Amino acid sequence: MQFHDRPVFPRGFRTASRNCGLKPAARDLTLFASEVDAAAAAVFTRNHFPGAPIVLGRETIRGGRLRAIVANSKVSNVATGERGLDDARRMAAAAAAELGTTPDRVLVSSTGVIGVRLPVEKIERGLVGMAADLQDDPLVGAEGIMTTDTHPKALSASVGEATITWVAKGSGMIEPNMATMLAYVFTDAALDAATLDAMLRRVAAGSFNMLSVDGDTSTSDTCALLANGLAGPVEPAAFEAVLAAGCTRMTEVLARDGEGAEHLLRVRVRGAAHAEDARRVAKSVVNSPLVKTMVHGADPNVGRLLMAVGKCVECRVRPESTDAWINGHPVVRGGQRLDFDEAVVRAALAVETVDLEIALGVGDAEATAYGCDLTKGYIDENAAYYSS
Amino acid sequence: MQFHDRPVFPRGFRTASRNCGLKPAARDLTLFASEVDAAAAAVFTRNHFPGAPIVLGRETIRGGRLRAIVANSKVSNVATGERGLDDARRMAAAAAAELGTTPDRVLVSSTGVIGVRLPVEKIERGLVGMAADLQDDPLVGAEGIMTTDTHPKALSASVGEATITWVAKGSGMIEPNMATMLAYVFTDAALDAATLDAMLRRVAAGSFNMLSVDGDTSTSDTCALLANGLAGPVEPAAFEAVLAAGCTRMTEVLARDGEGAEHLLRVRVRGAAHAEDARRVAKSVVNSPLVKTMVHGADPNVGRLLMAVGKCVECRVRPESTDAWINGHPVVRGGQRLDFDEAVVRAALAVETVDLEIALGVGDAEATAYGCDLTKGYIDENAAYYSS
Repeated sequence: MQFHDRPVFPRGFRTASRNCGLKPAARDLTLFASEVDAAAAAVFTRNHFPGAPIVLGRETIRGGRLRAIVANSKVSNVATGERGLDDARRMAAAAAAELGTTPDRVLVSSTGVIGVRLPVEKIERGLVGMAADLQDDPLVGAEGIMTTDTHPKALSASVGEATITWVAKGSGMIEPNMATMLAYVFTDAALDAATLDAMLRRVAAGSFNMLSVDGDTSTSDTCALLANGLAGPVEPAAFEAVLAAGCTRMTEVLARDGEGAEHLLRVRVRGAAHAEDARRVAKSVVNSPLVKTMVHGADPNVGRLLMAVGKCVECRVRPESTDAWINGHPVVRGGQRLDFDEAVVRAALAVETVDLEIALGVGDAEATAYGCDLTKGYIDENAAYYSS
Repeated sequence: MQFHDRPVFPRGFRTASRNCGLKPAARDLTLFASEVDAAAAAVFTRNHFPGAPIVLGRETIRGGRLRAIVANSKVSNVATGERGLDDARRMAAAAAAELGTTPDRVLVSSTGVIGVRLPVEKIERGLVGMAADLQDDPLVGAEGIMTTDTHPKALSASVGEATITWVAKGSGMIEPNMATMLAYVFTDAALDAATLDAMLRRVAAGSFNMLSVDGDTSTSDTCALLANGLAGPVEPAAFEAVLAAGCTRMTEVLARDGEGAEHLLRVRVRGAAHAEDARRVAKSVVNSPLVKTMVHGADPNVGRLLMAVGKCVECRVRPESTDAWINGHPVVRGGQRLDFDEAVVRAALAVETVDLEIALGVGDAEATAYGCDLTKGYIDENAAYYSS
């Protein structure tokens, strides 16, 4: 399969974004709408302190149908109590009124500062007239939802007569940066909500859920899949394969654009005792500050790989069967550092995408985790995020 | 209890350190010795890839008696296989020969780069004549074991007729920076090895094991406790109380001197369902890059505290009963951000020691974790550690 050279929407989906006064000038309010109700599924952050939009979204998605998504940046509406939930409901109602649907068909997302009341009046005023702005370019919506992202993120691909379009903003899920991951997937394929839900959970487990910029978990992460059926039925297996490919590609795009990142880091673990071990070890390596700074410095300090594998004390790890590669170059065999050419491996580390591969040699399970290097840019962005 | 103004050794303990050629000029070889055999206990890293000195140390400490500790920096003798274990044995034998004891009475520690063979001949040559250098200042040994530490770390205190002396180098244990934590505790109290072992495990659980600079776990961490009995018996409970106070204080000293650190960060969690939950939540907060950068930036983005508590998905957390304080200022009540005076809390965050307190309100268990802020200094030190 191939992604389209320029992302397009499936039939019936459109978007609009504008500034409603939450930020000084940048777009801070975005609407995605389908012409007709779409079957829908969504997964949300597991954080114990979910934002009001997450609480409302879990209620909304139970209906299995969505007509629209409305998202704002700057204020996340988290830790705002009952009043926050009322504000999220008002936001859904305002979008529904603008689009001529009901609030239970509108998914709400908010990102930004925690613990501050949502300026919902600005959002309500901002939504008025937005239906007239709806147009066909997914990048307009992708731009609208950006926060610390350095570029808008949208992809699309075909599956039979149908199209799938991914629109997202950085940076993570389950273990995301507080910048929050929002990923919306739109298709004109005809699939029911239960099928979408099962597919989304399977696909997210190996893609968005294996993304980690810093091991922190946002209170607002949301991934939603909407299928409006306008292209008719598709072969489910073919659809799921393309869905998985796009979610994986978007995961890589998000990782590469992690706050301050200069490298995409992919960590593949194979030969694990079981899938949970494979995921844990891959996450441990991709999250290790010492591995991340090693990638940043292009410094083949391979002991750090072993350290990050070995600190998974609950996982089955056998030093004598542990091998490792950096961008294809063998650097560890049987738990011991190989006598490799440092200049060659240093050069291999300096490319934009760094693949670390670890073979545990104790079983058949595997997993890949996605992350990025740790740079001074991360600290610049996060030491003063609140005040900026 | 009070620590001595200047650290002294208990009766019968002395130290020497010198350069043996592993580093260009700085001291890289250190010896600690007791005049007589000491009862001893030790705890080591849980990493699956322990260094050769750890493998040997586990064997040695089974005897429950030590006469000396020999430590080198620059090369950690990790991921070096059977040859590495032979080298560690040679290092113990050389120290034993110099001191007129047997190798099974010598604990070996090595810190530094992983996967490089230990230049054991240099160490053997370096040990010759070191017995004559042994003298009474614990700081000489503390200087000898430094790596990325910015200052030598030694403390002492009295308990009855006995003295306890702590000598350590940064930065962590169980979750330490790869700079490796070494902590040696010497006393002239008379206590048997089994008692020392039980005490050390209890005390380390609440002190060194709650220290985390970056969540990474060294392959070489070692904490040993030696009691040579020259001051006679002590009241065990009084001894353990002083032992705990010194280990906690040393934990704070190590955290404050974490790589690149500018602040000591203490996270106290109370009201947890059980001790394991309290420890997990405290560690989650102290390790969160977003909390660490918040402390670095003195920015009261308290949503990050809630995020770091809430991402402990396996722990019992109830948003409506969760309260939080920053250096005594209430910032969260019932899971909601309070309307606090930002300038006041910002000023409170700018002091050297930042205390974050979280009350979960679901039980009676508590724990305190120790860490530091995340700065560009950390990245400077770790993006090019290997080559430096």
